[in-house]
Amino acid sequence: MITSAPIELAVSTVIFALRPGDDSGRRTVWLPLVRRIREPQQGKWALPGGPLEPAQELSESAAFTLNETTGLSPSYLEQLYAFGNVGRSPGNRVVSIIYWALVREEEAAEAVVTENVRWFPADDLPELAFDHAEIVEYALGRLRGKLEYSNLGHAFVGELFTLSALREVYEAVLDKRIDPANFRRQVETSGLVRATEQVQTGGRHRPARLYRFTAAATQLASQSASI
Amino acid sequence: MITSAPIELAVSTVIFALRPGDDSGRRTVWLPLVRRIREPQQGKWALPGGPLEPAQELSESAAFTLNETTGLSPSYLEQLYAFGNVGRSPGNRVVSIIYWALVREEEAAEAVVTENVRWFPADDLPELAFDHAEIVEYALGRLRGKLEYSNLGHAFVGELFTLSALREVYEAVLDKRIDPANFRRQVETSGLVRATEQVQTGGRHRPARLYRFTAAATQLASQSASI
Repeated sequence: MITSAPIELAVSTVIFALRPGDDSGRRTVWLPLVRRIREPQQGKWALPGGPLEPAQELSESAAFTLNETTGLSPSYLEQLYAFGNVGRSPGNRVVSIIYWALVREEEAAEAVVTENVRWFPADDLPELAFDHAEIVEYALGRLRGKLEYSNLGHAFVGELFTLSALREVYEAVLDKRIDPANFRRQVETSGLVRATEQVQTGGRHRPARLYRFTAAATQLASQSASI
Repeated sequence: MITSAPIELAVSTVIFALRPGDDSGRRTVWLPLVRRIREPQQGKWALPGGPLEPAQELSESAAFTLNETTGLSPSYLEQLYAFGNVGRSPGNRVVSIIYWALVREEEAAEAVVTENVRWFPADDLPELAFDHAEIVEYALGRLRGKLEYSNLGHAFVGELFTLSALREVYEAVLDKRIDPANFRRQVETSGLVRATEQVQTGGRHRPARLYRFTAAATQLASQSASI
């Protein structure tokens, strides 16, 4: 039934990490982009991705380009949406299945950076190829939404964390200051985290209680993966 | 970079409606299926769908097969997920972008039914082709999830509705009895609906207050579309 050139199927990945901004030291959301070295849209920055190979699973393809671009393996990888508007790629029809991934700050700090692969703050991106600006906006919406109703913060803070480390994740992702006392109250009544007997010592501050996510939070996250 | 047979791209749609069950009159979730008249998997029932045409938008393709199968236009149509496992279709690699749709009961009652197109209750499906049973389960999870945190019920009940009509939607989708008094309390404190000055008259019962969804519910629904 297909009557003209076959439709190309690509898989691309939006990779998020929290990194300190240039001036304040406050962390914000960053993502790596790849400079296109070929037409169409040569010279513009794009999400890492490529055509799906016939023997490759969709998520394998996403993880492969992620690794190829950054040298990283994601702590979180999930399908986001299929973008396939007829006019999104001039000259040919390309449907892109988009994944999104989270990597930890310390991993992101070790990511490979080359002339054509560079990390950018999500709120200060260069001009992007195709509809990739729209895709990044969509992925940011999903990231913010999932942080609010699941234990997604886990992927950023690790298994044990202080409440201030968790608050900093929320501040970075939601891009706003959050009052520490309000945050503590909300988190403690949410049932998503619970205090452990352990504390974090060292540094200039007094020892801080370590928390972990509850089983309820983990269940919520797996439910939300199918929502 | 593609080295073997091109990957086929299909769009299929899970179409849900609430319909009375065979015996009790209580409504449950139903969906239309199409009997495969060709190999592979000839004779099995499958979701309505077909290959994406190069000049067709993804959602157009979904709406087209929906209309071709049932004669209906959906009151709700949304992309669900891309299913693309390597082994899901024997002999060739097919990636299916799945949409899901809701149609109102009175529309579903007028849907076209032929020898090879038939509606089935979601909890009593025949053997399905390929991975379509898994896709239907995934779609049911999304349906239930969205009903709980958005104004999705709107697509089933219309703009003005009685609380018992809304409760019947929840009972059908979640497949359980819900206590009317509890339901009234939960819905009234949720901020998702508000009472109007209008009542529904007629029938054997006393006039029932009509409700509508609030702006907050509408906003929630549009947010959740990007979550």
